Amino acid sequence: MKLTILGCHSASPHENKNPTAQLLDIKGHRFLIDCGEGTQVQLRKAKVSFVHIKHIFISHLHGDHFYGLPGLVSSFRLLGREAPLHIYGPKGIKEALSLLLKLANSWTNFPLHFHELGSNASVCVFEDDDVVVHTIPLNHRVYTNGFLFAEKEGYRRINADAAETAGIDKSQYRLLQLGQDVLIDDVLIKNSSVTYNPNPPKKYAYCSDTAYFPSVVPIIKDADWLYHEATFLQQHADLAQKTKHSTAQEAATIARDANVGRLILGHYSARYKNLDLFAQEAIPIYPNVILAADGAVIT
Amino acid sequence: MKLTILGCHSASPHENKNPTAQLLDIKGHRFLIDCGEGTQVQLRKAKVSFVHIKHIFISHLHGDHFYGLPGLVSSFRLLGREAPLHIYGPKGIKEALSLLLKLANSWTNFPLHFHELGSNASVCVFEDDDVVVHTIPLNHRVYTNGFLFAEKEGYRRINADAAETAGIDKSQYRLLQLGQDVLIDDVLIKNSSVTYNPNPPKKYAYCSDTAYFPSVVPIIKDADWLYHEATFLQQHADLAQKTKHSTAQEAATIARDANVGRLILGHYSARYKNLDLFAQEAIPIYPNVILAADGAVIT
Repeated sequence: MKLTILGCHSASPHENKNPTAQLLDIKGHRFLIDCGEGTQVQLRKAKVSFVHIKHIFISHLHGDHFYGLPGLVSSFRLLGREAPLHIYGPKGIKEALSLLLKLANSWTNFPLHFHELGSNASVCVFEDDDVVVHTIPLNHRVYTNGFLFAEKEGYRRINADAAETAGIDKSQYRLLQLGQDVLIDDVLIKNSSVTYNPNPPKKYAYCSDTAYFPSVVPIIKDADWLYHEATFLQQHADLAQKTKHSTAQEAATIARDANVGRLILGHYSARYKNLDLFAQEAIPIYPNVILAADGAVIT
Repeated sequence: MKLTILGCHSASPHENKNPTAQLLDIKGHRFLIDCGEGTQVQLRKAKVSFVHIKHIFISHLHGDHFYGLPGLVSSFRLLGREAPLHIYGPKGIKEALSLLLKLANSWTNFPLHFHELGSNASVCVFEDDDVVVHTIPLNHRVYTNGFLFAEKEGYRRINADAAETAGIDKSQYRLLQLGQDVLIDDVLIKNSSVTYNPNPPKKYAYCSDTAYFPSVVPIIKDADWLYHEATFLQQHADLAQKTKHSTAQEAATIARDANVGRLILGHYSARYKNLDLFAQEAIPIYPNVILAADGAVIT
């Protein structure tokens, strides 16, 4: 699991402070999460091939999470994309994008599938053999979802030495991976004696934008990584409340209560010059804190 | 008259190659011309105060000329703007921007006036005491206008030495500026003997995007500056024709035939690494060529 921070700042435009976008590499998928203005250039900087992006998840329709999407989709077209694209986001996203493409006479030459969201409960929006994605309903000024990306449990891992000693032919490794015992010369070889447990599946929870909202805790429980917005410091808790954003302290409280493995903070208001203050505020409540930075790669 | 090139590249996303946007300072106005993705950050880099932008002219609704507008308008709101904003652009621009603002629950707290364009003839879209702006109908894949920004003739300029020698009190200078003669001790002082002609009014013609389109020549005749797109070099004239763009040679031909004072080239396709080739191709046809560059200021 690898997370590339394409942008981690809030809406106010500044040189070298990009609005929200992230790229999650998970089990062969490259999921784009949010798409603020300038995301396509940030993808170029990160040397991400556009063709590998097949699923885009949009949390809400504020510009700093969404206004890079029309340009990115137009560029896909310009570059001759043929692969289908799936876009997950709040109801209205289809109408908005369709109108912009229509006005530009730029209908896509690839299949464009919209998955519009409107539920206030956590729902499954994507699932295949490797990964499942659920929404995390959030509490913001407009309808907003975070997303929980969870690996499915993988195959059992072969203990090659033990398997060889037991005389198991490689043609039977697939059965071992699937957890089955095998017969060798009428002797039953127990699966557990020649395999290891699968790697524990990883979970990444993305929560932005939102006020302090403890309802997310059971949904994101035990996630390996949590990205949680921290637009403000506690000294501006009044502004956080008014604008339905979180403070670093509140993000840390969610991380602690959900027992996550690591907390990534971002969506900083441009008023703060010293971002270390966000870590300083969060760490007394929850110690394993990373500050997101544009271009950073987290593994 | 001062022109700040905020972006002068075509649509393909690249680091440090911004799509089209320009800021024209003319007689106290700051006109924003086109607004590709990332324009608000380019304005910040150029240290342009957002509040002074009151009129935005959009040539057409392709993303590389337009997708920065929703973010800029949202930022105006975020920054507490109260001054009215006028947006001139093709029919559909109001519906698109209104939908995006509605979905973001971000109705502006300042008056937002749309002036939608649909005529295929050159029409006046703005006029006050100092400046008049006409459309320049262009020939592109979607409905597109360039814009001709023309200063009105200013006041006559006082020859202070001559006026003092003639004994004219400063209280009468306003009459002189307006071209009137004045009486001093029953002697008529001819205006022309104590004033200079007004500074010649300046004209800036903006033509992007367009195929080679000689119909613009009479509209932009004798403009001081012409910005004309040159997406391609002549070696790709077939692509220019197919995509309804111009080559550097075609832009120079328009500049020569319209007898403009200076030609500014831009909207380069990303395929060309050496932009000097655009000047080399244009200069044999029309010598006074400037290559636009992001961040450049032309005075």
